[in-house]
Amino acid sequence: MRLHSVDLKRIKIKDAFWSKHVDLVRESIIPYQWNAMNDLIPDAEPSHCLDNFAIAAGKKDGEFYGAVFQDTDIAKWLEAVGFSLAADENGELERTADEVIDLIAQAQQEDGYLDTYFIIKEPDRKWKNLCEGHELYTAGHMMEAAVAYYQGTGKRKFLNVVQKLADLLCDTFGFGEGKIHGYPGHQEVEIGLIKLYYVTKEKKYLDLAKYFIDARGRGENYFLKEIKTPEYRNIFPELAEYQPAYSQSDRPVREQEAAEGHAVRAVYMYSAMAELAYEYQDQELMDACVRIWNNIVKKQMYITGGIGASGILERFTTDYDLPNDCNYSESCASIGLAMFGIRMANITRDASYIDTMERALYNTVLAGIALDGKSFFYVNPLEVWPENCMERTSKEHVKPVRQKWFGVACCPPNIARTLASMGQYIYSAGGSELYVNLFISNQAEVELGNEKVQISMETRFPFENEIYITVNGALEKGIKLAVRIPEYARNYKIQSEGSIVSYKEEKGYAVIMLKENASFIISFEAPARFIRANPNVRADCGKAAVTKGPLVYCLEEIDNGKNLSELYVDTKQKIEESDSELFGGITELTFKGKRIGEAAWSKGELYAEHPLSLSDVTLKAIPYAYWNNRGMGEMSVWMKELVY
Amino acid sequence: MRLHSVDLKRIKIKDAFWSKHVDLVRESIIPYQWNAMNDLIPDAEPSHCLDNFAIAAGKKDGEFYGAVFQDTDIAKWLEAVGFSLAADENGELERTADEVIDLIAQAQQEDGYLDTYFIIKEPDRKWKNLCEGHELYTAGHMMEAAVAYYQGTGKRKFLNVVQKLADLLCDTFGFGEGKIHGYPGHQEVEIGLIKLYYVTKEKKYLDLAKYFIDARGRGENYFLKEIKTPEYRNIFPELAEYQPAYSQSDRPVREQEAAEGHAVRAVYMYSAMAELAYEYQDQELMDACVRIWNNIVKKQMYITGGIGASGILERFTTDYDLPNDCNYSESCASIGLAMFGIRMANITRDASYIDTMERALYNTVLAGIALDGKSFFYVNPLEVWPENCMERTSKEHVKPVRQKWFGVACCPPNIARTLASMGQYIYSAGGSELYVNLFISNQAEVELGNEKVQISMETRFPFENEIYITVNGALEKGIKLAVRIPEYARNYKIQSEGSIVSYKEEKGYAVIMLKENASFIISFEAPARFIRANPNVRADCGKAAVTKGPLVYCLEEIDNGKNLSELYVDTKQKIEESDSELFGGITELTFKGKRIGEAAWSKGELYAEHPLSLSDVTLKAIPYAYWNNRGMGEMSVWMKELVY
Repeated sequence: MRLHSVDLKRIKIKDAFWSKHVDLVRESIIPYQWNAMNDLIPDAEPSHCLDNFAIAAGKKDGEFYGAVFQDTDIAKWLEAVGFSLAADENGELERTADEVIDLIAQAQQEDGYLDTYFIIKEPDRKWKNLCEGHELYTAGHMMEAAVAYYQGTGKRKFLNVVQKLADLLCDTFGFGEGKIHGYPGHQEVEIGLIKLYYVTKEKKYLDLAKYFIDARGRGENYFLKEIKTPEYRNIFPELAEYQPAYSQSDRPVREQEAAEGHAVRAVYMYSAMAELAYEYQDQELMDACVRIWNNIVKKQMYITGGIGASGILERFTTDYDLPNDCNYSESCASIGLAMFGIRMANITRDASYIDTMERALYNTVLAGIALDGKSFFYVNPLEVWPENCMERTSKEHVKPVRQKWFGVACCPPNIARTLASMGQYIYSAGGSELYVNLFISNQAEVELGNEKVQISMETRFPFENEIYITVNGALEKGIKLAVRIPEYARNYKIQSEGSIVSYKEEKGYAVIMLKENASFIISFEAPARFIRANPNVRADCGKAAVTKGPLVYCLEEIDNGKNLSELYVDTKQKIEESDSELFGGITELTFKGKRIGEAAWSKGELYAEHPLSLSDVTLKAIPYAYWNNRGMGEMSVWMKELVY
Repeated sequence: MRLHSVDLKRIKIKDAFWSKHVDLVRESIIPYQWNAMNDLIPDAEPSHCLDNFAIAAGKKDGEFYGAVFQDTDIAKWLEAVGFSLAADENGELERTADEVIDLIAQAQQEDGYLDTYFIIKEPDRKWKNLCEGHELYTAGHMMEAAVAYYQGTGKRKFLNVVQKLADLLCDTFGFGEGKIHGYPGHQEVEIGLIKLYYVTKEKKYLDLAKYFIDARGRGENYFLKEIKTPEYRNIFPELAEYQPAYSQSDRPVREQEAAEGHAVRAVYMYSAMAELAYEYQDQELMDACVRIWNNIVKKQMYITGGIGASGILERFTTDYDLPNDCNYSESCASIGLAMFGIRMANITRDASYIDTMERALYNTVLAGIALDGKSFFYVNPLEVWPENCMERTSKEHVKPVRQKWFGVACCPPNIARTLASMGQYIYSAGGSELYVNLFISNQAEVELGNEKVQISMETRFPFENEIYITVNGALEKGIKLAVRIPEYARNYKIQSEGSIVSYKEEKGYAVIMLKENASFIISFEAPARFIRANPNVRADCGKAAVTKGPLVYCLEEIDNGKNLSELYVDTKQKIEESDSELFGGITELTFKGKRIGEAAWSKGELYAEHPLSLSDVTLKAIPYAYWNNRGMGEMSVWMKELVY
């Protein structure tokens, strides 16, 4: 039996590292995004999201404005609100959300249809542009939001709305005669349908998700057929000359060998595939998930957990192609990677999936949002030189500073809903098994079988590596407590009442059988260390990065001067760790290196025989998650390595 | 008084290095491109160029096909034919060309208008889309072609056609009332008009060229006004949201501080600016030329003479932004840089312009064409990993192998006309001065004042550095012979009859006053050497390139194995030079280095602590101009440098 995340209503996070991010959701991001969606942020790109619903509901006159998937902004916001209300009651926020849900319900059409773009702008073209229209994508986010809101508040109104929508989808799509044999141009509805199934137990929702996965890439490509119809209208200029691999529809998903195409589409699909593989005990589908996962983490993932190496089309490219300064590595793609990872971990009980999920969450996802919660990165490069991030050039997608809001605003609300639901990643539980995945201080109540068990964690991880865990509850029948042994942990130890506890190691977890209340101290060493990339990663050959536990570090101009490319790191020297007050408290790293001198170039030649001159420098690195919180400047994760 | 190139009818090139390229034009490229323009090349993109003229002339039914500037293919072909006929008579080719010219004349309209796109497709929209319509660009190429054909054959028919066209332009454009106050979206007509002036002495052509330069970027931007007109239609999707800096029209040219925007547009304009600055003795304009030239060669040029660092919009970006694997560096842009350089050299008598011109011609321009003359690079990267040059990604503009023909086929015929007119770059002459710019074996007759002087050169440069020069003729009044001292030359010596000849050095030239026939041996050393880039070039920090004389060398996979990023070069060791039969005879370079070992990575991890292991290797480099003539593989100009 697979494991599940714990009920977000029953987990309270109060953590030295995470709380400042997680609390932002309630304190800052949810109100800020509410203002953004109401177009109240000065100088930010307009949203018009709520107006679209008011117009669709007939309560306002006007035109649709925004991307075809503009509705998903409110969906992701409501999902974050649902998660937030699960953790903390907030009457005013709940009233606001209820009003929005009333509006959404009013915008929904008689037959259950719900998509303001098509309702307002192209009512005759519903389901006629699955390739680019994003109706199913939007529906999926509505479903996720409704499930979160139901779980957070117990209120069913939004759930009823999306069930009506899901029922319409069940009647509209499928292999059966008279149904549309298509599938979404941007996967997401599969995840929504599966969540809706878990809450409602309506098997037809799960079956429809399976249909979308089974139909995808089979026979003649649906999108290419659709594009050939005379009434087809291209929405996104960059999708002209459509290549089915872009949406992972070039062949059946079970035959796919590697991650390909648009990264967010890909990982959303893989997340659904994993759950369907489990629910239908479909080994072929699970094999595809494992194969594709391994391709990502062994050949197509940045050290920061970023994925999608191409700035054009935000997509996977080829094995080991991981350029640092022009990549896309969308925040949403790393969120999707974490989603894929937790699902694989819940099914396989294999901690290596958590290692990668943790990498994505602690680095790229966190880097996507400013420490004040008010600006965001869509694109997450590993090396930035602000001067060359120019509009209308190859680097135009790389922004050297976080942006207030985006015309296509998928990332900010996606980060918000992820932070608001961090609780789902900490534990996995099921039957009599309780798995500890992440080391985040919290108190939780977990249902194991019919019994309730209380577990708490207390730690200053990742800056210290001692984790205090206590388990209380009805443990007489015995439970299996499995605590993750991260891949970077050295001298991993579990102690209880002053004695070392012996454990069995299972797929990266330390397993203890527990029959009574107990307290443990998990401890390990995770010193800062120099990491190299596989030499096939041409962009990183001859370079080293520095990490500490799950955190990837980077150099910033403000600490190390202009032109970070002039720097070499001496990996034979020790990395010094010290406490710093920066960013609310971090472990700061310093180490020795050299800098290429510019003195010989005083005449300004571009090319010359001048010998290389190097001088000693001490380099200072901070967590990548926190870069660009002190103004604009150069940043680099990978550093040239001195070779003796 | 400025200098001029010599009459191409009076120079015969027979050179160990260049003849195999130059002869290709006559033997292979002109016939091949003729077939291409007649759509006779299997698997190549269609051209339809000649059909467009036949349709415009009313001799054929059909639709226009191709880019708006498709006419320039035939113009550049005729220009190459003109240059080729100047060097070698060829009755059959001349008859074919005459027929094409008859066709062009028939396509020309009563009032002189000549552009098949607008004649066939949008007769009501003439001159209404200067921003993107390329009518003036096309006119400029027609003028250049007609001048070359007239100079090569003495026939005036084509010249008459373009004069009629130029007269129409003079009536249509200008500051005067009732005239269009616009200027070309793609500069080129200025060069054509100036050449036409030099041949016809019609001052109004020169004045119109000056108008186009003077009007550019003054007051409200013409293109932005044009784009706002209701009938305006965007032709190139990438030019939507037009930025005037793209076409160097964001401010008056005299106020421009640095090279900006689309590189080909830029250098074509700078070339015209240089000549106009001289003709009108316009110091402000000359200052702008010098300033922009210095910006290019000191801050925005690849070591190969490539320019235009952004793959998107083929444009200049910012100082020192010179990425090696995703740049554009269009072949045409380097041709334009050579054109700008020779003009500046002819005006200033400063050899540093020739150093750069030589760099462009010997490296990027030559690399643009295969050794068999049948395939071409549009984009000239300095580092290629074929696997990641994927369609629909950030690298899609980088082709790992030369292409047969292009839909937008500016580069192949541009390379052809450049090779066919190499003679124009060898000498500069005027009054009683004879400047030797390039070391290419040839025999030439030069008019100095009213006297004729014969000069010949004999050399195996750039693989050997002895140049035999003889000068004969009516030298009694004395001439100034100036032989270039290249920036890479060491121990530069001039000998005559066994003795060292003393010379005066003037702006990089060795100057000798000559009153009688004489023979000289110019000799110098130009050993292979390691070159570094200014450390502000972040992409090249910690790297070295290897050059010999004007040639930049590169590593290819076929000589050095897969994954060139694993290689380090040991710059403290000697570079061995040896003769090789490759590519018709080159100096091949070998040197010591190290390779990063992959053994530690046998488990396939993507990131790990594995120590760096290095093994000794000997690296082999070949001239960059000849890369990708032995099949597809990795290539790199810049190599990591071992740091002790």
